[in-house]
Amino acid sequence: MDTRPAPSLDDPVYRESVVDVLGLITYGELTFFERLAADCAMAPRLVDKAALATNACSEFRHFQQLCAYLEDLGVAPEEVMQPYVTRFDAWHESTAPSTWQEGLMKAYVGDSIAADFYREIAEFLDERTRALIVEVLADTGQEFVRTRLLEVIAADPPLGGRLALWGRRLMGEALSQAQVVAAERGALAGLFIGTDERPGVGLDVLIDIFGRLQKRHSERMAALGLDA
Amino acid sequence: MDTRPAPSLDDPVYRESVVDVLGLITYGELTFFERLAADCAMAPRLVDKAALATNACSEFRHFQQLCAYLEDLGVAPEEVMQPYVTRFDAWHESTAPSTWQEGLMKAYVGDSIAADFYREIAEFLDERTRALIVEVLADTGQEFVRTRLLEVIAADPPLGGRLALWGRRLMGEALSQAQVVAAERGALAGLFIGTDERPGVGLDVLIDIFGRLQKRHSERMAALGLDA
Repeated sequence: MDTRPAPSLDDPVYRESVVDVLGLITYGELTFFERLAADCAMAPRLVDKAALATNACSEFRHFQQLCAYLEDLGVAPEEVMQPYVTRFDAWHESTAPSTWQEGLMKAYVGDSIAADFYREIAEFLDERTRALIVEVLADTGQEFVRTRLLEVIAADPPLGGRLALWGRRLMGEALSQAQVVAAERGALAGLFIGTDERPGVGLDVLIDIFGRLQKRHSERMAALGLDA
Repeated sequence: MDTRPAPSLDDPVYRESVVDVLGLITYGELTFFERLAADCAMAPRLVDKAALATNACSEFRHFQQLCAYLEDLGVAPEEVMQPYVTRFDAWHESTAPSTWQEGLMKAYVGDSIAADFYREIAEFLDERTRALIVEVLADTGQEFVRTRLLEVIAADPPLGGRLALWGRRLMGEALSQAQVVAAERGALAGLFIGTDERPGVGLDVLIDIFGRLQKRHSERMAALGLDA
């Protein structure tokens, strides 16, 4: 059980960690917007385009909510996002979908891993910040994405095998970028490792989190009838 | 002066023309969303990304309003958009921006020509349809686009000359696609040419409209200090 004092935004060390976490999530939402919009451009049917664009704009609305919160904390969103640009862009470049089905799979796997990770981190944050993170992650349009994936796999079973491999690659690349981010970003790592004044939650907790991310990823792949 | 009876959605011939016009505008908004989102992905600064994504989502909101109106008229938006897919996609392919400044210019020139054209057509439509078209064209974020273009040209004057040429090409390609659309789409052309029961507004009016589109395009280029 966590017996440490409740985190407060008045604590400058904690506040720095929060801002760092929010920089990560905020830039993540912007890149998800860009990626879903690119999927929309690749989609063959007009109804798919409309659904993907709806999801994209929903991600962008979350981005705007997060920016407003950061401004409220007195920080410029673009400054706290900047440290994450290289990592996210590297992930998106290393996992650029070559077909619209791969794009769908990336939306399904990538957005979900990110959302799971943010929700896990939110557990260690103050109530106000946690409530915002949970709110912005609530409506990500995953229902449409899963339904369409089931349809495209049913229509072309060998595609399922290729998408299973692709899902594994997406997960692997996400974990390796996450490790680099954790190593690069002291304030973010500080949440787990802690400082002299404020002990962190512990690296064992971080290991548990990654275990749960992997488990939920496997469940999502199983929901498509695929192996993780 | 137009002495013809006021157009009514109860007239099936007129209604067909309206649905055809709305199919054009609705698909146009969807492609503008896709294109602005692609510009967002190309933009170098995070503040530019945020501004372009805001514009993109605003276009998509317009798209949703138009779809709702079409559904209200009892037609499936994807069906009335379908005939315009090839033409719009051809325009976007023939004018794919190779830099983010070319993308900005395309947003400035292309969206404005389209908006001017739609507003001109709206003048011949029933009040309810006209009000919707005018409303969805109201907030297109052109202020940001013009301001950034002035900044990028001021920072790199030779770029202005290249963007002037690019603007001319965008206008030329838009006019040639518009002519093909007019020839292909009988119901749309019917608004101008008319039928036995309902005379059109006349081809001379159409020529005047294209003259005004060209004039406003020249004014917009002049506002950037460029020749049209």
